[in-house]
Amino acid sequence: MREVEVREASLLKYPEWIVWIVSADGTGRVNIMPAGWSMFTSHEPPMYAVSVGHDRYTHALIRTGREFTVAFPSPGMEKAIQYCGTRSGREEDKVSGSGLRLRPATRIKPPLVEGAVVNLECRLAAELETGDHTIFVGEVVAAHIEDNAPGRLLNFGSGLYALARPAPSS
Amino acid sequence: MREVEVREASLLKYPEWIVWIVSADGTGRVNIMPAGWSMFTSHEPPMYAVSVGHDRYTHALIRTGREFTVAFPSPGMEKAIQYCGTRSGREEDKVSGSGLRLRPATRIKPPLVEGAVVNLECRLAAELETGDHTIFVGEVVAAHIEDNAPGRLLNFGSGLYALARPAPSS
Repeated sequence: MREVEVREASLLKYPEWIVWIVSADGTGRVNIMPAGWSMFTSHEPPMYAVSVGHDRYTHALIRTGREFTVAFPSPGMEKAIQYCGTRSGREEDKVSGSGLRLRPATRIKPPLVEGAVVNLECRLAAELETGDHTIFVGEVVAAHIEDNAPGRLLNFGSGLYALARPAPSS
Repeated sequence: MREVEVREASLLKYPEWIVWIVSADGTGRVNIMPAGWSMFTSHEPPMYAVSVGHDRYTHALIRTGREFTVAFPSPGMEKAIQYCGTRSGREEDKVSGSGLRLRPATRIKPPLVEGAVVNLECRLAAELETGDHTIFVGEVVAAHIEDNAPGRLLNFGSGLYALARPAPSS
């Protein structure tokens, strides 16, 4: 074991979860971003937390709209992840450029992602400042699954998003 | 896409991250638990968040000691995960029963996990109640890596902890 900078240690985090965060400003404007920092955070009531950088457009939209969708990407969304992860919704409509298809949610204004393994409709319940990010905690008020999706993509680093299979321990 | 209970949707989360959380009460008493709900939450300063159930012994120890270690398990720790995940540190010394070896940290009281891919020394910076859990956010004040570890274990569900390799998208 040897001590290193935190940044070097964090490179060993992969494979990392990746989720879509879908937000809306209440006037019909919708934004979508892929995010690596998220987790479930309560069973009862069900809650989900996302960590969003202060400068992200999604940050402003969640502050305004107080609702967001969390969706788990499925195979076929690799290019959309790259596309949406390298552009800002402040400058363009990322949804139309990404090829993703959205459909209305049942209980919140931000829409759902067609074909995603899971879509969770979240209402903002609490938030916490953490350095250069904010943790937004949503109560999950509805959930949807896609039976035809073979599984969720993970981020293996270096631009590789793939399904994960277990490798035998050495 | 079809609407389901949140619990059913959450079964599609796997593979999930898993980390060790090591805590101490200040009198030398140490506890360790495996946890699935955790994430990085700031680059500058580096911060890491863990979500811990209210009834967990670790919850009480972090409240008291205000420091914790986050470690990424490596191959060979599968049985220790099962052992520590099904017992409470209130009733027994889980460390000695688990076969895990610990060593002193450099800047905090909770120790490090020998052989883990990464050890992050965290000082409690903020906390947030979220339903039946608390999110504890730690500033990462030191980081250590194990060069000989081949990678981190993921939780594939049904008691299977394994390294992940990318599977080709269909």
